[in-house]
Amino acid sequence: MAVVTQSLEELCINSIRFLAVDAVEKAKSGHPGLPMGAAPMAFVLWDQFMRFNPKNPKWFNRDRFVLSAGHGCMLQYALMYLVGYDSVTMDDIKQFRQWGSKTPGHPENFETPGVEVTTGPLGQGIANAVGLAIAEAHLAAKFNKPDATLVDHYTYVILGDGCNMEGISGEACSLAGHLGLGKLIALYDDNHISIDGSTDIAFTEDVSKRFEAYGWHVLHVEDGNTDLAAIGQAIAAAKAVTDKPTMIKVTTTIGYGSPNKAGTASAHGSVFGADEIKLTRDKLGWEYEPFVVPEDALTHTRKAVERGAGLEAEWEATLAQYKTKFPQEAAEFERLINGKLPEGWDKVLPTYTPEDKTLASRKHSEICLNKLAPVLPELFGGSADLTHSNLTELENSGEFQAGHYENRNLHFGVREHGMGAICNGIALHGSGLIPYGATFLIFTDYMRCSIRLSALSQAGVIWVMTHDSVALGEDGPTHQPVETIASLRAIPQLTVLRPADGTETSGAYKVAVLNANQNRPTLLALSRQGLPNLAGSSIDGVAKGAYSVIDCDGTPDLILIGTGSEVNLCVKAAEQLTSEGQKVRVVSMPSWDLFEAQDAAYKESILPKAVRKRVAVEAGITMGWHKYVGDQGAVVGIDSFGASAPGGVCMEKFGFTLENVLAKAKAVLAAS
Amino acid sequence: MAVVTQSLEELCINSIRFLAVDAVEKAKSGHPGLPMGAAPMAFVLWDQFMRFNPKNPKWFNRDRFVLSAGHGCMLQYALMYLVGYDSVTMDDIKQFRQWGSKTPGHPENFETPGVEVTTGPLGQGIANAVGLAIAEAHLAAKFNKPDATLVDHYTYVILGDGCNMEGISGEACSLAGHLGLGKLIALYDDNHISIDGSTDIAFTEDVSKRFEAYGWHVLHVEDGNTDLAAIGQAIAAAKAVTDKPTMIKVTTTIGYGSPNKAGTASAHGSVFGADEIKLTRDKLGWEYEPFVVPEDALTHTRKAVERGAGLEAEWEATLAQYKTKFPQEAAEFERLINGKLPEGWDKVLPTYTPEDKTLASRKHSEICLNKLAPVLPELFGGSADLTHSNLTELENSGEFQAGHYENRNLHFGVREHGMGAICNGIALHGSGLIPYGATFLIFTDYMRCSIRLSALSQAGVIWVMTHDSVALGEDGPTHQPVETIASLRAIPQLTVLRPADGTETSGAYKVAVLNANQNRPTLLALSRQGLPNLAGSSIDGVAKGAYSVIDCDGTPDLILIGTGSEVNLCVKAAEQLTSEGQKVRVVSMPSWDLFEAQDAAYKESILPKAVRKRVAVEAGITMGWHKYVGDQGAVVGIDSFGASAPGGVCMEKFGFTLENVLAKAKAVLAAS
Repeated sequence: MAVVTQSLEELCINSIRFLAVDAVEKAKSGHPGLPMGAAPMAFVLWDQFMRFNPKNPKWFNRDRFVLSAGHGCMLQYALMYLVGYDSVTMDDIKQFRQWGSKTPGHPENFETPGVEVTTGPLGQGIANAVGLAIAEAHLAAKFNKPDATLVDHYTYVILGDGCNMEGISGEACSLAGHLGLGKLIALYDDNHISIDGSTDIAFTEDVSKRFEAYGWHVLHVEDGNTDLAAIGQAIAAAKAVTDKPTMIKVTTTIGYGSPNKAGTASAHGSVFGADEIKLTRDKLGWEYEPFVVPEDALTHTRKAVERGAGLEAEWEATLAQYKTKFPQEAAEFERLINGKLPEGWDKVLPTYTPEDKTLASRKHSEICLNKLAPVLPELFGGSADLTHSNLTELENSGEFQAGHYENRNLHFGVREHGMGAICNGIALHGSGLIPYGATFLIFTDYMRCSIRLSALSQAGVIWVMTHDSVALGEDGPTHQPVETIASLRAIPQLTVLRPADGTETSGAYKVAVLNANQNRPTLLALSRQGLPNLAGSSIDGVAKGAYSVIDCDGTPDLILIGTGSEVNLCVKAAEQLTSEGQKVRVVSMPSWDLFEAQDAAYKESILPKAVRKRVAVEAGITMGWHKYVGDQGAVVGIDSFGASAPGGVCMEKFGFTLENVLAKAKAVLAAS
Repeated sequence: MAVVTQSLEELCINSIRFLAVDAVEKAKSGHPGLPMGAAPMAFVLWDQFMRFNPKNPKWFNRDRFVLSAGHGCMLQYALMYLVGYDSVTMDDIKQFRQWGSKTPGHPENFETPGVEVTTGPLGQGIANAVGLAIAEAHLAAKFNKPDATLVDHYTYVILGDGCNMEGISGEACSLAGHLGLGKLIALYDDNHISIDGSTDIAFTEDVSKRFEAYGWHVLHVEDGNTDLAAIGQAIAAAKAVTDKPTMIKVTTTIGYGSPNKAGTASAHGSVFGADEIKLTRDKLGWEYEPFVVPEDALTHTRKAVERGAGLEAEWEATLAQYKTKFPQEAAEFERLINGKLPEGWDKVLPTYTPEDKTLASRKHSEICLNKLAPVLPELFGGSADLTHSNLTELENSGEFQAGHYENRNLHFGVREHGMGAICNGIALHGSGLIPYGATFLIFTDYMRCSIRLSALSQAGVIWVMTHDSVALGEDGPTHQPVETIASLRAIPQLTVLRPADGTETSGAYKVAVLNANQNRPTLLALSRQGLPNLAGSSIDGVAKGAYSVIDCDGTPDLILIGTGSEVNLCVKAAEQLTSEGQKVRVVSMPSWDLFEAQDAAYKESILPKAVRKRVAVEAGITMGWHKYVGDQGAVVGIDSFGASAPGGVCMEKFGFTLENVLAKAKAVLAAS
């Protein structure tokens, strides 16, 4: 082995590289290439610029770091170990990608304190980062005072070619440029390699020029492998431009140091093997055994612990001063960052009686949002260019725009997927903000990965999805959800709610806000068309997922189960059947998952095993309903695409008529 | 009314505008703004450049037109009426957005001959157009000879701000630039308005510069409202550049001509009302009644009929010559465009016995693709940068790249959504090509709208999705599908197949190719891990969706139902239970939708009503299985997210063990 004298920086950077190589080798799985190439930029960033406290990963005013190229997570784990996070010990690194470890195959914020967001699906991280930067900008505009800067941190991202190829990154970065988010700094690991080979085979656009077109400040570090000074100068220059986000293209070599794999696709996601690792050690003059970090390197990097404690203490002093000068704002700030909802916030949610006006549930949603907005200043969001269809505008606030970051109405543009990840980022900023994002229910298809990630990564977002069935009418099958609600119910840890009227919409918002406060997302499916207010609907019922809105004496002959706009149809059918002498219960079932979370006794009280005659009515596919209607039941649903026609015509043609529901119910009752 | 003398061009353009206005008014629903602003560019394009035959909308060598801003469909219907398509009569226009009409609320290729693709969900159309242009380039490279140009047409697109905000358009256009698709010409209706208001509120990027960064030829028509000459010059200039796609930014006024709505968001999607329509008629000097087209205009536009007949006749002459000179190629060309599969193509699909090697179904998929590729030259596709994970490379072809459009391996880059819409475009080119697109199953979440649109718009695509369960292992929950298969089964008209072994993978490909030939998409869910070959699996069984792979004498005590990798687990459990004296049937159920399409007798033969003891085993969510296992059955599934660990460990921890399946089965057998 050629012994090479290494500078302290090189020792640190090579420590990152070999922790990655050795962990991947031990796991026989993982992605060594990115950590090896991006170690210099990451080291310079973490060593010279990032402000954080490893001993308190939740310190509010930390800089946020997002590894958007999440497959390179060993880079982040190595850094976290080196700087002294308790969440990533050397034992954890040795458990890379094993069951129950703190070092899963992609960064997971819910597993590893200090990881801000969950990445891996490409492009999500950079879009999350836009959300983190929006949260910072909003809170800074809201709380900072000329002589008291309480909120002041950067959001740093490392992203790769894959992230830049994904449309979601384009959406989010276009918006970031529009908003002028100066404290967002993205380092683009320009290594010319994607999984299939050189980026020459599919990705030859001029990324820098594209980011300039978005309105970003763009820099280039030509030698990201060794020119640490240039990296540092670029980050400093990025920080100096405060009215635009910065993209620093850092040209690197994937798998840097590996004689046979560097600069090739095989460095990306394959285990090097003992021979190549030995050659790499030789090449980089690395004389240390696997999982051994030279003392000099560790001593240096662990200075982050003291530095971080100092930064936090300094900020605590600022906060203390702020409390003295601005007690009211300080109380509000602390309420937010401690995740406390104000006392009695839910009292503003209205309830309705059948005498109240027939309104669409999207309209009830608008009422709820605007009732909640004054008591919940943390409510913050908007629509993907459908504000006046989704009805999501907060009347008591203006538009969140450059120069007006204190405002709460976000215009996402026609960028559903970007909106999704941005909302996740706002939620995962961890400062009590409750983001909401809106579009037509059908277009959850454009943002499904982000919705899934809000569920997986425990991002307390409210998804306000309107136009929830073929009843939306003329826009036709491209716009009419039929399978959409079922497909969303399928996502674990996501509460899906389809309220039946005004009171149930209030109930849905109560659930959604409580969920958000507990870091759980909620999706609301709301009608375009007007819905009569039911006599039996209730806020508490919604919280249980399913409950009786009409009941009979004794054991029902039949249970009709409806959701959303179809509950009223069930009520009408029940009235008719009752008048004909049947004993009928109507169950409104706004949420399957909330119902499943109830205890067995409650479930039995609503859907008693003894009552086998059941009919579910929902203007969507029948899939999944058999669990609730059972072998003797029936489902009135739509197992095909919709059609372009007025909404009422669609509902009629697809069988959502009193006549058809009665026919189905009577067939079920008559069957032996 | 101020009578204004109008040029013939103005008469035609205003005819388009008022057909749109009047149809929207009659329907009380729709989007007049885009047709009014984009009528000039559309008229110039259709009148001076587009080569098509209104009386044969399927003429192979027609130029393809895509209205990516699909909400403006009255623009397209008006044009189709004016140029003489039989599919859009004046009566059809009067039935705009009504049940069963040929003029639905967004362009639907399956409703209206002459509409190439189904648009509405923004950004899909421009990405479809990239697929159409790819198909043209491929067929041209394949069939054209130095002295015989059989394939030679352009793809024209009109897209709006909404399309340009969507990430999918960025993905597809970046790839189009990379591929140098010179016969793709996009007219960008730059009207500064999106639904929420001025594009200033969310979309201030430099779109032209972004397209330049993608490698496009970019032009600008500054006055798209009246400068017809400039529009014509720009399109001519676009055609002259053959090695790059062209984006022509055409600056227009949305709702042009309406005194109070032009240039505002309210022109976009709202009905004008009688008063404003009168004012607009005054403003544009339009003296005609609703739905009346001046004779001069119609006479002029209807010349397209004769022109089109001539163009087609000319091409038929070229084809006749080609047949003489190149009979073999001509026969192949005609086979393709007539949608005939070659005799006996399916004979190449291999079958296996339990003695054959244990391979992953993704590997079997690779074998099928490469067995099929020589006999089905129409097979054409690739992966979103996971070629060697999805195993989708065709060995007998090179890469589809500029200068090598005859090749069949497409590199989509990390652009799943773009890939989806591009594959739809290739299929909807209608020339017999069978496109396939591949990524990890979980990332169908990134392209769900495109998959839905392949089902809705009858695009015969094969979706090759690998890594189909938590058994993929270390990549963890961001990469592990659990709800994904269920959510895809939910899409109407999509065949979802999860084969259990090599023979079933062959069966899946047989279904997929036949489906594609019948304009129906198929999604294959394939394993990362090896699967033993089963004794009872069969190609014919797969085609029926579910069938017995192990059976007993007489009526079974228990039916075990499995899919994909879990069928073998069911087989093992059945062997054990049989040895303990139980009568057990194992049903492999690769496809719910194919099973549902069987007749009642077949269904009863596989899942007899009398057998109520049933257990389904699938490494995914349990949703939907209750329909098949019934009230007395059980499901072994995963109703939570996965975890990062080796695949075998994941399967064990989530209960996919012989022990657990036996326990569940015995509990079901024991229950009263």
